[in-house]
Amino acid sequence: MNQLDPSRPLSQTDRTRHHRLREQGSFNRADLDAILAAGFVCHFGVTVDGNLLVMPTVYGSDGNTLYFHGSVASRSLVASPTATVCVTVTHIDGLVLARSVFEHGVNYRSAMIFGTPRPVTDPDEKWAGLRCLTEQATPGQWDYARQPSRKELAATSLLALSLDEASVKIRTGAPDDGDTPDAELGLWAGVLPLHTHWGDLQADPALTGDIKAPLHLAERQGVTLN
Amino acid sequence: MNQLDPSRPLSQTDRTRHHRLREQGSFNRADLDAILAAGFVCHFGVTVDGNLLVMPTVYGSDGNTLYFHGSVASRSLVASPTATVCVTVTHIDGLVLARSVFEHGVNYRSAMIFGTPRPVTDPDEKWAGLRCLTEQATPGQWDYARQPSRKELAATSLLALSLDEASVKIRTGAPDDGDTPDAELGLWAGVLPLHTHWGDLQADPALTGDIKAPLHLAERQGVTLN
Repeated sequence: MNQLDPSRPLSQTDRTRHHRLREQGSFNRADLDAILAAGFVCHFGVTVDGNLLVMPTVYGSDGNTLYFHGSVASRSLVASPTATVCVTVTHIDGLVLARSVFEHGVNYRSAMIFGTPRPVTDPDEKWAGLRCLTEQATPGQWDYARQPSRKELAATSLLALSLDEASVKIRTGAPDDGDTPDAELGLWAGVLPLHTHWGDLQADPALTGDIKAPLHLAERQGVTLN
Repeated sequence: MNQLDPSRPLSQTDRTRHHRLREQGSFNRADLDAILAAGFVCHFGVTVDGNLLVMPTVYGSDGNTLYFHGSVASRSLVASPTATVCVTVTHIDGLVLARSVFEHGVNYRSAMIFGTPRPVTDPDEKWAGLRCLTEQATPGQWDYARQPSRKELAATSLLALSLDEASVKIRTGAPDDGDTPDAELGLWAGVLPLHTHWGDLQADPALTGDIKAPLHLAERQGVTLN
């Protein structure tokens, strides 16, 4: 995995140097994998007809490849088969509340993946890719729900993006100004964590009879993601 | 507010037509305002030296303008003072679990804002913009924490982006296949909601003495955002 920094280096101020302690780029592949595994929605950036678009969309990760479908795939294919995209997955873990406004920040885990997506045309890979997408958001659902018909499979655009070029940034922990003169101000400082959790299943009002939710959905209720 | 669709029209399949029932673009300014008010992190897309970047960053919204700072502002300024950006704010509200894999989806609220950000150089607007950014994430914190010094203010790049050109998409409700032949399969279908809530405050270990968290932070603990 490469750490990509395509912009010119940012000027180093006291602030950026300080932040490096707790806000870091990671070259660890395990960090990338963990960020991708912890989510199912990304922000997919692509330029279409000269217009930059950043679209939220679901993804599936199979270890070395991300899969995308739907309008994101369609638009990216419209853009050009050689268009470079940037896909970003972000988890927000909390607010970093420092003594000074200037040192305020956010605890987060974020991965950016760069590359040129490949249209998936092979029916077997398309099947596997859609399975991967479905299972990323809802493990167990691919085998429970009705799987795609041949017609549905043909109607689905699927894109594959290699994980070869990726950048990870993570910030954890307390504010950075606990050892500065601001610490003498007598102000409270710390972190307000942000958590995400699954709620209670809401049955489709169109359901008839006594159809119970399957275990793989029922056991997810109330589970906290971070 | 304009609904921008810079790509060619997508082909209309049974699926996209069906989804229109519950997944819709909105031309309602109140929807845009509500989506922006409900969050504090966006994904900021900009092309820098030919490389498309999608970066998570905090924002502040004052009603007609979004404000950004930090490395996003620096990189965008490096890109060019005339670079067009796309800023997307997304809230994920739940998984839409249909009878068929093909009809699975996500309930979400998303706003895309397009435009050319303007560097903020006027000290008064910079002050107001930073206040807006701080208060977006943590109401009450601007008056509690130490406000920026003149040096800090000078070291901060701030960008302003007009809300004039924006696109909103929202999906709510149950799956779309309750009135299709798949409804006869006897499968459970519905929504698994995703909620976000603030956790318990974590005091900076560097805090000395008996400094209590201020009310505007303490009363936020346990509060659910969606």
